Amino acid sequence: MQLIHHRLCPHSRFIRVALAEYGIAPELVDEPVWERREEFLAVNPAGTTPVLIDDGITVPGAMVIAEYIDEKIGLERGNQRLMPGGLEARVETRRLTHWFNDKFFAEVTDYLVQEKIFKRHLPAAAGGGPPDSSAIRAARANIRYHLDYIGWLLRERNWLACERMTYADIAAAAHLSTADYLGDVPWDKNESAKNWYARMKSRPAFRPLLVEGLPGMSPPASYADLDF
Amino acid sequence: MQLIHHRLCPHSRFIRVALAEYGIAPELVDEPVWERREEFLAVNPAGTTPVLIDDGITVPGAMVIAEYIDEKIGLERGNQRLMPGGLEARVETRRLTHWFNDKFFAEVTDYLVQEKIFKRHLPAAAGGGPPDSSAIRAARANIRYHLDYIGWLLRERNWLACERMTYADIAAAAHLSTADYLGDVPWDKNESAKNWYARMKSRPAFRPLLVEGLPGMSPPASYADLDF
Repeated sequence: MQLIHHRLCPHSRFIRVALAEYGIAPELVDEPVWERREEFLAVNPAGTTPVLIDDGITVPGAMVIAEYIDEKIGLERGNQRLMPGGLEARVETRRLTHWFNDKFFAEVTDYLVQEKIFKRHLPAAAGGGPPDSSAIRAARANIRYHLDYIGWLLRERNWLACERMTYADIAAAAHLSTADYLGDVPWDKNESAKNWYARMKSRPAFRPLLVEGLPGMSPPASYADLDF
Repeated sequence: MQLIHHRLCPHSRFIRVALAEYGIAPELVDEPVWERREEFLAVNPAGTTPVLIDDGITVPGAMVIAEYIDEKIGLERGNQRLMPGGLEARVETRRLTHWFNDKFFAEVTDYLVQEKIFKRHLPAAAGGGPPDSSAIRAARANIRYHLDYIGWLLRERNWLACERMTYADIAAAAHLSTADYLGDVPWDKNESAKNWYARMKSRPAFRPLLVEGLPGMSPPASYADLDF
């Protein structure tokens, strides 16, 4: 398997952790998505990461890859499966996976990645330049209610969607890890969200994300610390 | 089944047509989403339509409902099933269903519905008022390349994702029908996209969308005409 990704793309991180939970380490191919290269648009006309190439099949987009992996690999993994079996738990897992991949992205990680990373690489004529501080402020305000929502979900459950870890936890942790790399998660605002993230972060499948970085842009020391 | 929807919400239309293809007519409950009513946010914290209530299970969001319907109903429908069987065709169906529900929505229908419908209902203090003409212009420019993309897909296939009708066709037609109701589809720009839409529009499952309207806001005469 080959995974076309970008290191701080939260959707790519979601798929990397999911594959790692199944013991799969795809060959990683870095894509500078901000360049909108024609060769990449031919692979995924939407121009977004991640894209999985497996067995001659091109699978673009976090949710499409997640369903593909579930049907091809997850189905056989019994209670290790990242998509639960019951109809109702599946609804909740998908609802929350969309919540983080779509809503949290639109309200938090998209702002942060665009402003703090993509804009550094783009020429001014293509929208490059210093981060827009109002976009960063919006992301920092929005992330607080998402942390509270995570805390609220955990009042009645051990994991976000049901009594076991699912895609929903991985999606949430992937997006938070991108924001955390950039120093934008106010962990002190919600204790139970923080404890849940400590559990996610301690999983071996999460390790590769914590030890790699972007050249010229180091994360805060707490980023890789399991006792942050 | 109960479907909480809004008449011009393209995601709700997608689910209505999919259910109608399976011969299911849910009880429809109108939700004025722009009001962000607390009772509705308790049902779907994301505040969006559609929401399906079935057998005591609350299923929110177009893609989550589509997967739910497929697992509960579609699976038994043989070659009537709206999600094809093979791994590769499933990837393409999901890719394109997301394309229309996410990308076409962000670039076309979200602008149109926000500007032409929601803003009419909102007080000025909450963002109401006349449509922003630059947003409408953006939607009208963007829809052209989506029509061309549909035409391009149809060069090698009878339907958008594979050799039979799938969720991808229904999602595309649902979004186009919302834009068409508002008079914003330049059908003369792509003949094969138009012919494909004429086929979709002629299906009995599409009929209910064509004969109903919003009070005080009639569609153009061509909207319900099968020979538009």
